[in-house]
Amino acid sequence: MLTAEIISVGTELLLGQIVDTHAPTMARLLAECGIGCQRRATIGDNFDRLVGAINESLSRSDVVITIGGLGPTVDDLTRDAIAKALGDELVHEPEVEARLREFFANRKIPMTQNNLRQSYRPASAQLIENPNGTAPGLLCQKNGKVIIAFPGPKGEFEPMARGPVQVFLSRLQGGRVIHSRVLRIIGMGESYVEDRLRDLMDGENPTVAPYAHTGEVHLRLTAVADSKEAAELVIDPMDQEIRSRLGRAVYGQDLTTLEQSVIEDLLSQGRTVATAESMTGGEVAARLTSIPGSSSAVKGGVVTYTAEAKRELLGVLPSLLGQDGPVSPSVAKAMALGVVAKLGTDYGVSVTGNAGPTSDVDGKPVGLVYVAVAGPNGVTVQEARYRGVREDIRRRASQLALQMLREALAE
Amino acid sequence: MLTAEIISVGTELLLGQIVDTHAPTMARLLAECGIGCQRRATIGDNFDRLVGAINESLSRSDVVITIGGLGPTVDDLTRDAIAKALGDELVHEPEVEARLREFFANRKIPMTQNNLRQSYRPASAQLIENPNGTAPGLLCQKNGKVIIAFPGPKGEFEPMARGPVQVFLSRLQGGRVIHSRVLRIIGMGESYVEDRLRDLMDGENPTVAPYAHTGEVHLRLTAVADSKEAAELVIDPMDQEIRSRLGRAVYGQDLTTLEQSVIEDLLSQGRTVATAESMTGGEVAARLTSIPGSSSAVKGGVVTYTAEAKRELLGVLPSLLGQDGPVSPSVAKAMALGVVAKLGTDYGVSVTGNAGPTSDVDGKPVGLVYVAVAGPNGVTVQEARYRGVREDIRRRASQLALQMLREALAE
Repeated sequence: MLTAEIISVGTELLLGQIVDTHAPTMARLLAECGIGCQRRATIGDNFDRLVGAINESLSRSDVVITIGGLGPTVDDLTRDAIAKALGDELVHEPEVEARLREFFANRKIPMTQNNLRQSYRPASAQLIENPNGTAPGLLCQKNGKVIIAFPGPKGEFEPMARGPVQVFLSRLQGGRVIHSRVLRIIGMGESYVEDRLRDLMDGENPTVAPYAHTGEVHLRLTAVADSKEAAELVIDPMDQEIRSRLGRAVYGQDLTTLEQSVIEDLLSQGRTVATAESMTGGEVAARLTSIPGSSSAVKGGVVTYTAEAKRELLGVLPSLLGQDGPVSPSVAKAMALGVVAKLGTDYGVSVTGNAGPTSDVDGKPVGLVYVAVAGPNGVTVQEARYRGVREDIRRRASQLALQMLREALAE
Repeated sequence: MLTAEIISVGTELLLGQIVDTHAPTMARLLAECGIGCQRRATIGDNFDRLVGAINESLSRSDVVITIGGLGPTVDDLTRDAIAKALGDELVHEPEVEARLREFFANRKIPMTQNNLRQSYRPASAQLIENPNGTAPGLLCQKNGKVIIAFPGPKGEFEPMARGPVQVFLSRLQGGRVIHSRVLRIIGMGESYVEDRLRDLMDGENPTVAPYAHTGEVHLRLTAVADSKEAAELVIDPMDQEIRSRLGRAVYGQDLTTLEQSVIEDLLSQGRTVATAESMTGGEVAARLTSIPGSSSAVKGGVVTYTAEAKRELLGVLPSLLGQDGPVSPSVAKAMALGVVAKLGTDYGVSVTGNAGPTSDVDGKPVGLVYVAVAGPNGVTVQEARYRGVREDIRRRASQLALQMLREALAE
């Protein structure tokens, strides 16, 4: 099997000022193409270290991918580092220069001299077209090795990776394919899942491995076969066995998120929902509406941080708020019922609680959450206590809200 | 100056099934301690490659940090790999075993045999206490080198890193400190910023480097000095010069987000806001309420995906929706004014538009956005056209909403 390494380039990445999401995207793409990703590295904008890292990766692996450092500024060193590592001259591409000049002329902004650096390439490189930016990608083949260099901006990297580079890599790798399927599980802890599936986790093809995430567990099933289709056939019986043991806790697979699963259930049943959020402040609505097509299922929602907003937008009685406090099962129920009445939806989901960092005015502890779902079969409410920082508590609360909505839809 | 490398351990990380946020956190912490992070690597759950990577890092750098792979399962290999790299035996810690047994007994769940692996340590390691989980961290000092091993779960990694490890690293590094300050800029493109500051970007201490993000630009000012305080003094005059050139476009520094800056402005002026969102589906509200203390400034908000919700929750006239369509400046204004009237806030901010992936029923193109802000000085509306995927368009629209709210607060 062909092997690859990914080098992310940039001081800002190295020092942790931004989080690297491109390298994970590229790693998934390599796996889909049946190329084994062996190692990833992050190197700052330092010419010698970058040349060193490229040389090390070339000595170990067949394919070296670099991401970042192709732009116009003096910090952009990848083009020169690849040329150095390959012993190549830089050659000028008049066509790229012409396109650069046209790009700036169209935008009526002056082109600075440093932009011309983008019109050079290492001698053994072909250019990869970049319809979304000024720096073309580079595809170098020399001495039986491949180097592919991507620009760093997401809107330029992704179309190039998912387009011409994916085609190239799939052809390059004619042999065995590693293919994974991820089963996504809600409402069970990692150790519980592991316990239920222990005997399945010793296999070699497919392998089964659990991973814990905030509020859910993922199981990765990985097979090696002659094609993606053959790998699917290896994975299928294991997938069925796991689903038969865990039942509805498996809410989706691969990149299906919980919100997507809920939107799909709503759309397939022709049902609608509205949200009423206090502590999650719109996160449940934002997660649901992040799914394309959600506008047919989500009529709307309200964020009611204050007692006044709960009364004005949801009709929650001041006497109830005064008696039980805003963080209470009765207020959660009243919010869910209130938003259903207001927007005329089939379901209403509400969240109230204290996300911290300090106890609220009523002295309710940080992490206390009530989630209610109102639907055709009445209203249910659940209490939870979460630990962690504000962000985690909000995430777990929105996770519970989506989980309960999913359960209500299954009834 | 001491140098360090970070090794993130885990096949799930390597293959891109999860995004690594711990290594960036650790890299920032190293910088704060004045230790130069030279390189980061990601290695799968493979014993030989992990030992190899630890040995390479030890040969290049003074401090090697590993994150992940200390848990109880057979995939957790970091403890053994460090012992192998250092030529150490594994020794048993009866106290850790006792604590493990107590942990499981308290939770009334049976402890499996594999959990006992966590009670072993390489001979040259001290244990780092882990109040939030079962696997202690490891701090190894041998042959003039340091290896620090963290468990992978966020709730265990972060307190350990920000607690005892930060204290240890600060003491270890008695010498020079690298310190960065990031200025965050809204409403100007990267090339515009670079053009205005070109003469400042050739300096060596501090250095100034721009980075583009979705909807904003960050400028990193980095100084080397004897202490963090001395570095601040090197950075201060450059900071002032940049602010004098860019003015109010500099909305915050370091980890201050745009939503935090807006909440601070609202709180310091004693003003309140409510949101009315269509295409952003609650993202503006979720961003504002993610800030601790926001409940005093954000009364609430509505998510109005349907015409019915716009009418019911905001009082937007059906005739207006019919005449101009939901994606229009007049509807954006009506939504902002409607939510102010409904919740009695000082400001109202609204977003309507088409986030894609397809043109909406009215044939409005993907990426067309209207944002309105209503306030004491009347209502303003702005049109924007964004390219990219749904997620990017929503992000840019919520960014514009926060930016316009910030501008209105400055009037």
